[in-house]
Amino acid sequence: MKSQVFELIRSKRAVRRFRDEPLPESVVTLILEAGRLSGSAKNRQPWHFIAVQKRETLRELAACGAFAGHLAGAALGVALVTGDPFLRLTVPFDLGRAAQSMMLTAWSLGVGSVMATIYRPDRACDILGVPPEYTIPWCISFGYPAEPSDRPPRRGGRRAADEVIHREHW
Amino acid sequence: MKSQVFELIRSKRAVRRFRDEPLPESVVTLILEAGRLSGSAKNRQPWHFIAVQKRETLRELAACGAFAGHLAGAALGVALVTGDPFLRLTVPFDLGRAAQSMMLTAWSLGVGSVMATIYRPDRACDILGVPPEYTIPWCISFGYPAEPSDRPPRRGGRRAADEVIHREHW
Repeated sequence: MKSQVFELIRSKRAVRRFRDEPLPESVVTLILEAGRLSGSAKNRQPWHFIAVQKRETLRELAACGAFAGHLAGAALGVALVTGDPFLRLTVPFDLGRAAQSMMLTAWSLGVGSVMATIYRPDRACDILGVPPEYTIPWCISFGYPAEPSDRPPRRGGRRAADEVIHREHW
Repeated sequence: MKSQVFELIRSKRAVRRFRDEPLPESVVTLILEAGRLSGSAKNRQPWHFIAVQKRETLRELAACGAFAGHLAGAALGVALVTGDPFLRLTVPFDLGRAAQSMMLTAWSLGVGSVMATIYRPDRACDILGVPPEYTIPWCISFGYPAEPSDRPPRRGGRRAADEVIHREHW
């Protein structure tokens, strides 16, 4: 059974260090379109995406999360903007779907990525001029990997199939 | 700029009616593996997956949500099992990433899918014998589409790019 998207999922790893090389506009557009076109509960599309490529802005965003430092060196940061993400559990779920679409599309074009949880969403909204009824729970860093992308995953890998996958019942 | 995964994202639509035809075991395995191998915050992998193919069990699960009726006719239902999904916002986000991986892998093999929000998680956990410290916020229906899969999306489509995508700031 062959599936190119499965191979992308299998080979994908979090990339936190990027080459100092801009992404072509066609790549940026495709990544953003992959998010925009993703499915969501009742087709609500509970998202806006802000694409950031200015180094100074990326550096400011990098200071908005304890583990968001990688944004400072990204070629592209995408802020996920939404209303109250706690209002409905489907909001963060659908944001996850859109993020995965963007990251897999990027990976198919040789572009690495990693998630950043934003611990200071008010500050991130200030930086990007986002209206007060919205927040930024996550950003995604994108860029060409600084390290070869064919090395095996660094840490732990995934839990074994028989630990995670059940048939017919628990 | 060509990307097969982008084409899958672009062409994907929610499939709620399925042919009465089982999925090959190799397809079921690949869908489940796509979920298992997905990335998550701090590699926490906050998930178990229960694959259900017995018609009677699928019918019981279909009664656990107001819009979950499609599970009754699915060739495969996958229950997403997790701890408290409200504990951390990354739990539903990561479940969304895994769900998108599974649905895109399925779509690449001609298998349609649609999400079901579970309104009665306690009942769903009873049906599947899930321990009390876990819950089932969502299930996914999978199967070969009963209708041709090349028709355009039924409802509304997606919001326009200039409404959703911002550059450098809001």
